[in-house]
Amino acid sequence: MFPFRVLNQEAVQENLDMKSCLDIVERAYRLKDENKATLFPMVFHEFEPGVADMDIKSGHLAGANIFGLKLVSWFGENPTKNLPAIIGTVMVLDSRTGRPIGIMSGEAITLMRTGAAAGVGAKYFAREDSKVLLSVGSGHLGAYQLLATLMTLEKIEKVWVYNPRSTERAEIFCQSVKQKCMQLLQPYQTDRSYYEEMVRRINIPFEVVYDIEQAVAEADVINTATPSKQPLLKKEWITEGTHITCLGADMGGKQEIDEHIFANAKLFVDDITQAMNVGETEIPVKKGIVQADQLTEIGSVIRGLREGRTSPQDVTIFDSTGIALQDLLTAESILREAEKNGSGVVADI
Amino acid sequence: MFPFRVLNQEAVQENLDMKSCLDIVERAYRLKDENKATLFPMVFHEFEPGVADMDIKSGHLAGANIFGLKLVSWFGENPTKNLPAIIGTVMVLDSRTGRPIGIMSGEAITLMRTGAAAGVGAKYFAREDSKVLLSVGSGHLGAYQLLATLMTLEKIEKVWVYNPRSTERAEIFCQSVKQKCMQLLQPYQTDRSYYEEMVRRINIPFEVVYDIEQAVAEADVINTATPSKQPLLKKEWITEGTHITCLGADMGGKQEIDEHIFANAKLFVDDITQAMNVGETEIPVKKGIVQADQLTEIGSVIRGLREGRTSPQDVTIFDSTGIALQDLLTAESILREAEKNGSGVVADI
Repeated sequence: MFPFRVLNQEAVQENLDMKSCLDIVERAYRLKDENKATLFPMVFHEFEPGVADMDIKSGHLAGANIFGLKLVSWFGENPTKNLPAIIGTVMVLDSRTGRPIGIMSGEAITLMRTGAAAGVGAKYFAREDSKVLLSVGSGHLGAYQLLATLMTLEKIEKVWVYNPRSTERAEIFCQSVKQKCMQLLQPYQTDRSYYEEMVRRINIPFEVVYDIEQAVAEADVINTATPSKQPLLKKEWITEGTHITCLGADMGGKQEIDEHIFANAKLFVDDITQAMNVGETEIPVKKGIVQADQLTEIGSVIRGLREGRTSPQDVTIFDSTGIALQDLLTAESILREAEKNGSGVVADI
Repeated sequence: MFPFRVLNQEAVQENLDMKSCLDIVERAYRLKDENKATLFPMVFHEFEPGVADMDIKSGHLAGANIFGLKLVSWFGENPTKNLPAIIGTVMVLDSRTGRPIGIMSGEAITLMRTGAAAGVGAKYFAREDSKVLLSVGSGHLGAYQLLATLMTLEKIEKVWVYNPRSTERAEIFCQSVKQKCMQLLQPYQTDRSYYEEMVRRINIPFEVVYDIEQAVAEADVINTATPSKQPLLKKEWITEGTHITCLGADMGGKQEIDEHIFANAKLFVDDITQAMNVGETEIPVKKGIVQADQLTEIGSVIRGLREGRTSPQDVTIFDSTGIALQDLLTAESILREAEKNGSGVVADI
């Protein structure tokens, strides 16, 4: 019998902030590269193709003495039943004894750690003097990936927002995104100078893209975060010096950018195997445009063992497929915070 | 936010009994054969070979509208820390929405459903007039597999108990096994005639085996439930008409009986893929003694689509590797019972 903490989404949010999450995600990548973290094979099952599926991503973070899993399901028809389409749970166990420690709602963790990955990608691969940030996609992830990128790049002056299917949605997004970012900055109100700096960074124009070709040409940093299965950005639109973080592809067949962009870009991924199987990297590898040995894991760049961007002219791509280690390390941090302030319910298991 | 029930081992035990579990395990096999149940690939990780490992078995029971997983870890050094070596948890979700329903301690479920598998194996493959039951192994699983077998075979007159490493342990086991069985029969006290019949069935001699060759020759039914990696029973000891249920092999390299016994036996398994990969069937398949097309899944025998035993002379083997569907269907039944009587803790997730 073990004490086992259960946290709902609200409790997760109360114990998680973006600045900490940026550190956590960077640490997860680093631990992976130090061989202090292991990803287990992913389990994927389609209940009904195109209607409902689920996956179980699991792994071991020896560097943090935990292992565990994230189970995420997608039921496309849930919204008609007043339920969210995506439901996730993260379970954490002690890797010294196998003892279960806790379980929590996974949605807020996914949004936060995926957004944070964009921030870490921008920190390591974008030009420090980047001024224009383009978001391809204006969904739930929007505020998270934009805020994370603004937190790591201090010179951004403008954000473009493109929705490939609905300009109207991009307009609605631009009207509400600053408010959402302000909510995410609440935890820093006690650290006045940091808070004010971050408020300054988000008080820039967020503008709807009507001409994607022009926006791509102007952008220094592009984050893609859509469920697209067709390339949305063409190779000839990309200009020298651009950094692209691809966040959308997390299963076979998804694609957000022209595979030929990979041919002349410096390529970084969170996990080589996962990127080649289910990431944005999948299609260019299958078409023979990219070989495995051209891929560099971000962890080795963070550790200084491999080069990232080497010139202001480089086009860089970071394929962030999302690895269980990010979820587990984030969940572990949440459980530590929750223990301090007594969040959630502690049951016996 | 969803209500999410957490059950510890005591709560699990209060809501689970062997007679129900026999029905549940039979139903799990049946649903699998009706393609109303799907096993997902198993995840296995060794933290340190021979010292600590974990596996995640998962699956979908469309016939019961649930999916989920069992995570079991083994930390060999835990007992020195006053912790159990094996710790398991079972999580159940609704396969119509992805909603998490509950999570519970897995140890009691594993013991009960593994024992029940022996009972179901005996019901379908042993001779109805079987009189002598031999248990190879005298560990935690002993009382469960013996009781389950006695519940499905009404004419057993004697139980032999063999411990390949310690006769003393077999002696201790024989002294306590009836008491443990009586505990497991407590739920039936309100059904007087059934209870009395079951008490009659366990009030037979339980005797320690000193000469294994003689015991095997005499046995009509043999249950093997050890962690052995070497064959414990030789082919030449097995007599006509014997049924053997192998419960011990659940990972590569485990073996309890001489692989040559498979050559002339009728072969039944819970899951062909899992049996060939990690079951008692692994070695005979690898050695070319058995081909995949000689294996029959028990579900098709239960459904009457394939033959089981066809003559009193047949030697039959049931390789029960233990499938996640047994755990999930058992867990679902426990959750339904727990809901009725308010067991455990309902947290919000």
